[in-house]
Amino acid sequence: MSIIENKIIGNTLIITLNNPSKRNSMIKGFHDEFQSAIKIAEEDKNVCSVVIAGEGDFFCAGGDLNALKTRRSMTEPERYQTLNQLNGTIESIYNCSKPIIAAIEGGAAGAGVSLAMACDLVVMSEYSFFSLAYVKIGLTPDGAATKFLSETMPRQMLAEMAMIGGKIDASRLYNIGAVNVLAQKGNAKETAVELSKNFENLPKNSISRIKKLSRAAYGNDFSKQIKLETDYMVKSQGDKESMEGIDAFLEKRTPDYKKLR
Amino acid sequence: MSIIENKIIGNTLIITLNNPSKRNSMIKGFHDEFQSAIKIAEEDKNVCSVVIAGEGDFFCAGGDLNALKTRRSMTEPERYQTLNQLNGTIESIYNCSKPIIAAIEGGAAGAGVSLAMACDLVVMSEYSFFSLAYVKIGLTPDGAATKFLSETMPRQMLAEMAMIGGKIDASRLYNIGAVNVLAQKGNAKETAVELSKNFENLPKNSISRIKKLSRAAYGNDFSKQIKLETDYMVKSQGDKESMEGIDAFLEKRTPDYKKLR
Amino acid sequence: MSIIENKIIGNTLIITLNNPSKRNSMIKGFHDEFQSAIKIAEEDKNVCSVVIAGEGDFFCAGGDLNALKTRRSMTEPERYQTLNQLNGTIESIYNCSKPIIAAIEGGAAGAGVSLAMACDLVVMSEYSFFSLAYVKIGLTPDGAATKFLSETMPRQMLAEMAMIGGKIDASRLYNIGAVNVLAQKGNAKETAVELSKNFENLPKNSISRIKKLSRAAYGNDFSKQIKLETDYMVKSQGDKESMEGIDAFLEKRTPDYKKLR
Repeated sequence: MSIIENKIIGNTLIITLNNPSKRNSMIKGFHDEFQSAIKIAEEDKNVCSVVIAGEGDFFCAGGDLNALKTRRSMTEPERYQTLNQLNGTIESIYNCSKPIIAAIEGGAAGAGVSLAMACDLVVMSEYSFFSLAYVKIGLTPDGAATKFLSETMPRQMLAEMAMIGGKIDASRLYNIGAVNVLAQKGNAKETAVELSKNFENLPKNSISRIKKLSRAAYGNDFSKQIKLETDYMVKSQGDKESMEGIDAFLEKRTPDYKKLR
Repeated sequence: MSIIENKIIGNTLIITLNNPSKRNSMIKGFHDEFQSAIKIAEEDKNVCSVVIAGEGDFFCAGGDLNALKTRRSMTEPERYQTLNQLNGTIESIYNCSKPIIAAIEGGAAGAGVSLAMACDLVVMSEYSFFSLAYVKIGLTPDGAATKFLSETMPRQMLAEMAMIGGKIDASRLYNIGAVNVLAQKGNAKETAVELSKNFENLPKNSISRIKKLSRAAYGNDFSKQIKLETDYMVKSQGDKESMEGIDAFLEKRTPDYKKLR
Repeated sequence: MSIIENKIIGNTLIITLNNPSKRNSMIKGFHDEFQSAIKIAEEDKNVCSVVIAGEGDFFCAGGDLNALKTRRSMTEPERYQTLNQLNGTIESIYNCSKPIIAAIEGGAAGAGVSLAMACDLVVMSEYSFFSLAYVKIGLTPDGAATKFLSETMPRQMLAEMAMIGGKIDASRLYNIGAVNVLAQKGNAKETAVELSKNFENLPKNSISRIKKLSRAAYGNDFSKQIKLETDYMVKSQGDKESMEGIDAFLEKRTPDYKKLR
């Protein structure tokens, strides 16, 4: 049995964190298996998007606290090395050219929040929550959690999450726009897979460029971002995808991007 | 008949995109006429603010798809040249020293969203929507759409708009604070003109500086922005406008900024 | 009688702006007294957090308009010097290693908004409001108001506040996540003190690092912020606080951070 299970349904790679007795926490082996899964998504031409879900009633509890205990006796370079595994997982999502949807059932805690918010789209079930309670055990957020949350919420709400460590529930996150779909309890994964079907018939180069634009927008100033958009548009206008897309539009037919994959 | 109609009512320049049979899309001539209109706003001392509205039941559908078809046969420098016309339109709004209000009836699509969100204030009618569906025809957002939306919404919501291309309706945009007033259907323009009257009796230098501060705030870090605010406050304190404003306040009378225009 | 009153209840330093007849505006002496109060919070090991509240029915009306009148006759360097007092107050909150909660009763205006939003957490009573009406007297926002508001709201909402100068009420601010708790009228201070009790049993180094991360997140890009988080986590993992926190968690007991203060 592996920690991460991969399954392709239609054109969606479903990555299931599969260690429910430990609330799918990031135990030894997690990061290697996870990053291999994302590599499959990147390389398989039939995969148009990815859904990340947790087995059982919790998405991901973040780092393994038993392992954390051993960190204090590590040298600092060893600690960096260990944290770089988590960072590698986050970057694999962030840099993946295909859209990735997090399906949060129950809740996400610690680096589980980073994992969720690294994704492009987030589905949460009602009554699920985010918890960033590092402070309670004398630690600080990792995996770019504070960066991702700063892109979605006011500093005061981030302070509430990170400095007090209380839970923020899905409905509050939905109200501010951080969650795309609020699913019925038990339906997060199903809803995310349904959402992923949107990508089956969409053009991959275009999506990949838009993913880069979306991420860059939260760091670039006006001049840099309008320049980046212009560069990408010039490229897109010469791409076979837009030839097919515009022709189909003018001919009033459905575009066929599958042949261009 | 021109593509853009200008009309001054009171102290408001109303720019009407006037090509309703093509949903006010940006056909040949649009950008020159639009930028001339903004120039009028800039130069006419009696114009205190601008309202941009669309004739008919749609604000602006963005680029003209028939024209887009020809872009693929252009050289890259020619494509840049064409896109720079759109960028010039966006920058004319962004750099205009006077406040600009978008009045969205029906909806805004593609670069129509960029046009709307470049504005300082946005009025949308109920049931109207934003659509950023470039992806559906193999293209990518332009006109700083991703920058403007990153200033107003979480990355997950931007991804939903730009990577899937679905509609986001006015009420959802209002809830997150991206829309200032949700008008009754058919009343967007009227509501925007009403809102613009606020600027008739306000001081122009002060407004112009605040517009610059507002835009800079979304790119600057704490140190740069507090320094910029300090520089502007030092200038404002020596300006005739604040002399009039503070005197009027202390003398309990209405300030008269008109004489200072 | 002093302009600022300090009182320690439990582990909370309550700073009360105590000039209610002038709506606690920043009269001569305000900034020195305020910054001394924050210094107490910084230096007193028993102080775990700070609550800032206003005496009477208004939080803080910002700068003193009578004093403002004299600024125009100052040289520019003198104006900078005066503004640097306000900036010093804002930076004292921003750079304080301990969490600070604003308790807004009635409303905050002008630099009172900067004072509130410089804080980590914000409690507002129902029917209270923010007003950034510098424009009405020919001035421009100061004290990093535009920076802090850009971290919490869309540019369009900031424009509404700063360019028109109208009031934004607490419920609208709560809906977008800028306010942590909406208290009943008359209960803002009490609610903030209650909220501050969360910090009594939390570890101070961890909180101090998280405060820095939270602030940096709104300026840093992805690479810088994930690096900063990694640096802080490496430090936290070697800190006595996390030893106590993780041990307590694994031993299923309450951690005792008080002995580490």
